[in-house]
Amino acid sequence: MVRREVTPGGVNMGDAGASGPRGLTLDRLELEDGATLAPLTIAYETWGRLAPARDNVALVCHALTGSAHARDDARPDDPRSGWWNPLIGPGRAFDTDRYYVICANVPGSCYGTTGPASPHPGDGEPYRLRFPHVTVADMVRAQRALLLALGIARLAVVAGGSVGGLQALEWAVAYPEAVEKAIVIGAAQRLAAQALAIDDIARQAIMADPAWQGGSYAPGAGPRVGLGIARMLAMLTYTSAEGLEARFGRRPAARASGWPRFGPRLDVETYLQHQADKLVDRFDANSYLYLTSAMDRYDVAAGHGSDRAALGRIRAEMLAVGMSSDWLYPAAQVRALAEAINESGGRARYVELSSPNGHDAFLKDWDAMDALLRPFLASPGDSRGPPHE
Amino acid sequence: MVRREVTPGGVNMGDAGASGPRGLTLDRLELEDGATLAPLTIAYETWGRLAPARDNVALVCHALTGSAHARDDARPDDPRSGWWNPLIGPGRAFDTDRYYVICANVPGSCYGTTGPASPHPGDGEPYRLRFPHVTVADMVRAQRALLLALGIARLAVVAGGSVGGLQALEWAVAYPEAVEKAIVIGAAQRLAAQALAIDDIARQAIMADPAWQGGSYAPGAGPRVGLGIARMLAMLTYTSAEGLEARFGRRPAARASGWPRFGPRLDVETYLQHQADKLVDRFDANSYLYLTSAMDRYDVAAGHGSDRAALGRIRAEMLAVGMSSDWLYPAAQVRALAEAINESGGRARYVELSSPNGHDAFLKDWDAMDALLRPFLASPGDSRGPPHE
Repeated sequence: MVRREVTPGGVNMGDAGASGPRGLTLDRLELEDGATLAPLTIAYETWGRLAPARDNVALVCHALTGSAHARDDARPDDPRSGWWNPLIGPGRAFDTDRYYVICANVPGSCYGTTGPASPHPGDGEPYRLRFPHVTVADMVRAQRALLLALGIARLAVVAGGSVGGLQALEWAVAYPEAVEKAIVIGAAQRLAAQALAIDDIARQAIMADPAWQGGSYAPGAGPRVGLGIARMLAMLTYTSAEGLEARFGRRPAARASGWPRFGPRLDVETYLQHQADKLVDRFDANSYLYLTSAMDRYDVAAGHGSDRAALGRIRAEMLAVGMSSDWLYPAAQVRALAEAINESGGRARYVELSSPNGHDAFLKDWDAMDALLRPFLASPGDSRGPPHE
Repeated sequence: MVRREVTPGGVNMGDAGASGPRGLTLDRLELEDGATLAPLTIAYETWGRLAPARDNVALVCHALTGSAHARDDARPDDPRSGWWNPLIGPGRAFDTDRYYVICANVPGSCYGTTGPASPHPGDGEPYRLRFPHVTVADMVRAQRALLLALGIARLAVVAGGSVGGLQALEWAVAYPEAVEKAIVIGAAQRLAAQALAIDDIARQAIMADPAWQGGSYAPGAGPRVGLGIARMLAMLTYTSAEGLEARFGRRPAARASGWPRFGPRLDVETYLQHQADKLVDRFDANSYLYLTSAMDRYDVAAGHGSDRAALGRIRAEMLAVGMSSDWLYPAAQVRALAEAINESGGRARYVELSSPNGHDAFLKDWDAMDALLRPFLASPGDSRGPPHE
């Protein structure tokens, strides 16, 4: 069932138990919608050492446009070189002296794991829109298959923010016996109508760009303008009104830029455009369509009949982290998730990160994040679950 | 200085003092930025009768994509046939048995008043981007010129919501001796960073549409997709998270539509698309660029040095109306406007409309709006201002 090879992204295979980027190719993965991905290459990275009992695994799940590069061993003190760099490492919240930390790029993405830009096995051309719909449950299935292939049957902890938080929640629901602790940050049972609408407008902007060509743009090309608009919209949902006001207000931009323009340009506008340009250079537009759709479609109750039935499956000790100025998954929704878990017989604690940084606070407010996560991660493991394999 | 004629939109001239749609053409209007509009046709409508003393004029100012058609005499009980239909008429809050109500389409718009789609006097071709930048102050100058041409030197009341509210505020600041009462709804001294960013993204969507052609699309054609995306974004700022959640939640759409699509479509998405389609059929894309820029650029302190200096000019009795779920001009900002007016020596009262309908509540919550406006409009006029001309 498992084939090993060098992935197209240049990620090298290696044995579990050591640090570094690597990849693993599964012959096939059945997806929630009934389709099959065959083969499925999964790019992943690990930090720390797998304990002989294989009971010290911390799976961290990346957000929408993230990758497996959660920590950069070469630049551990640069907070931007790995997306959770300040939280992972020796002595850090995810203490690699204790945990074997794993992060895997999700199916549908474009950082080494099979996605719309990967070659279709039938003709070697990119999948593009022939790529099947993937869901958050599929991301979790892929991670589960990766871990089983590595001989890991149980997670000491699974953690993530945003779509990564949905994955952490789905892990606890889908594989209750396999998760000891779960940390869900800036995520809830499902996305609300306003956020769904924003994501849809963003996808329309991508698909309205003639360079999208029905998804059939050449590798390296694509709907730069449409994807840029989508990213600017997303950035609004990652920031907050108070944060933008404090940082930018109505200040004019220091210099204008290459975008088409109408009227004077403001600093807040060129900031968003800069963020858009950065994403457009690094991310595949079709992947953006697939992954935002996965986020939108996620509903914890799907397949279980109700929230209570879904959340009642959870055996893990849960930590739900809301962010005070989060607009995508408002703090009240994260608090409600924790309450719903407890009302369903689970054990969830809610903590709130007070920050003007909106949804992105979990990728910015390092001291506060460390303070919130460290006690939960440092405490002894759960004794209520089944014995470790 | 004033020429009278039939406007291109088929609006007929008429004398002041009677009801009906009409137009007036000024030879020229100097604009805030130094440019000149020559000529400037202004489409306007009136309801009620002008009193012999000319002291019963209520000017109502329309919002971004509105027109002079605030009331529909033929369909007075259809709340959608005129944008403030339920509030204007005999016995209504703007009681036409007392007030002579006037509404004028603003320069830059596309409902009869000169705008980017109007013929340039030099060559008869549409102005398009040759149209000068117009500001909220220019809208007010145009209204002032119209009223003076009609022999009206003083307003019993000026009122508006959103960009119309900015106009009401600017009237009170720019022509303090000419305004007895002013009603500012869902507007404040200036727009905040987040809303500025949304407007900029919307304009980028319009200009990114190849059908925009640098503004040179043929009359009747234009960037339908880009303008549609802009409108959907704007609709988000006119609604509220709680309102969308209550009305739509995650309900799937009853039927799909002609838009490009990715993944299942939801009711909230097709609702926004329907709103977009309606606007695209009725509004000029270049006008949208000009008018959103005017809203963004408005700053009450401009030309006065400070808010205090600007607001200190006000002599009118002011009513500021915030809407509890307004996201474009949050209620706290409208409250702060009223407080700033009072701290600058003025007389402002703040009232709040509690509603899930967001910024659009002033165009939807008719009973509440009536209850909030009626006492202010029914009270005797100010005795502190100069004697009526």
